[in-house]
Amino acid sequence: MKNLLITFEGIDGCGKSTQAVHLRNRLESMGIPVLLLREPGGTVIGEKIRSILLDRDHGEMAPATELFLYLAARAQITAERIVPALKSGTTVILDRFFDSTAAYQGYARGLGLDTVLEMNIVATGGVIPDQTFLFDCEVPLARSRLSSVTDRLESESDEFFERVREGFLRVSRQYPSRFFVLDASLSPEVLSDRVYSAVVSRLFS
Amino acid sequence: MKNLLITFEGIDGCGKSTQAVHLRNRLESMGIPVLLLREPGGTVIGEKIRSILLDRDHGEMAPATELFLYLAARAQITAERIVPALKSGTTVILDRFFDSTAAYQGYARGLGLDTVLEMNIVATGGVIPDQTFLFDCEVPLARSRLSSVTDRLESESDEFFERVREGFLRVSRQYPSRFFVLDASLSPEVLSDRVYSAVVSRLFS
Repeated sequence: MKNLLITFEGIDGCGKSTQAVHLRNRLESMGIPVLLLREPGGTVIGEKIRSILLDRDHGEMAPATELFLYLAARAQITAERIVPALKSGTTVILDRFFDSTAAYQGYARGLGLDTVLEMNIVATGGVIPDQTFLFDCEVPLARSRLSSVTDRLESESDEFFERVREGFLRVSRQYPSRFFVLDASLSPEVLSDRVYSAVVSRLFS
Repeated sequence: MKNLLITFEGIDGCGKSTQAVHLRNRLESMGIPVLLLREPGGTVIGEKIRSILLDRDHGEMAPATELFLYLAARAQITAERIVPALKSGTTVILDRFFDSTAAYQGYARGLGLDTVLEMNIVATGGVIPDQTFLFDCEVPLARSRLSSVTDRLESESDEFFERVREGFLRVSRQYPSRFFVLDASLSPEVLSDRVYSAVVSRLFS
């Protein structure tokens, strides 16, 4: 059996976090060593960075500041938690990674998809997901699922989230071999089964 | 009269911060509008980043994390303070900028001088200093000037600071037209006069 690096991506409210927990629980119940981490965060330094990023008082944050803060958190979680876990044979599930920065900062904020993808390589030292699940979601559906209390990023406009969605789809077309695009309007049970089947077939291939 | 973006660079203990204050005071006494900022910091977001960077409890910080935190602070101070000040006709003096990341993270930490210089362009949106004063300093002299209470970066080894010094010299050779390399063992009065003369001749050229 292999161990994998699996990432869950999509706009806020697409259901990816719930699905990441489902997958972790299903793998654990089979006795497979698994670690679920969220980005940004997952380390002492990363959680401090997360609080800067999500603080609603920081509405004036420059787009490049946001980009570099995500990359900083990613560099830390990769070195401190992801690489050691992968080396020890654990399957790692990440709620956001790599492609979120490309979609949000690279595409939606206009800093450039390719520029951001190159910087991601520096941040992760070349670590790339084996499998990425993109929960593609209509923006109104995603927004209807978000709670009324929103953080700095969730308070962006619908147009912004439309661009993020398009950014994710572009990245998925650039890397078809690791991307599995799912229709986020399907029921949670159907989505969970599709994710689980795809992962199990990779783990035992 | 022009207004300029002037940066002060060198290893910790080289005397650049003292000299930056001297220059600010001398320009102010001539009635020249001037703003002195330190990096990382100078903004609400930047000061929070600074506290993460300098916290001694973060000894396990990955080199790429450190790089991206500096770039994040730089992107913010550039957008929020430097660009508006330059547009309003103010001369801006920076205690560290651009070249510190190249020397510390690019060269001394081995992330690559050119990689870091390219990322700097994203961070600053293309803003480049008109004049950079490098206070080149023997490492033992610099260390003798540091207080006994040191932060996370100041507690690095002598070998690390030797590499940083070499990094600064390499960058200065790459950009000779904006660099003015000074021997930091000269007296503060002599250094202050050299800096002041160079700046005044640029301001009124």
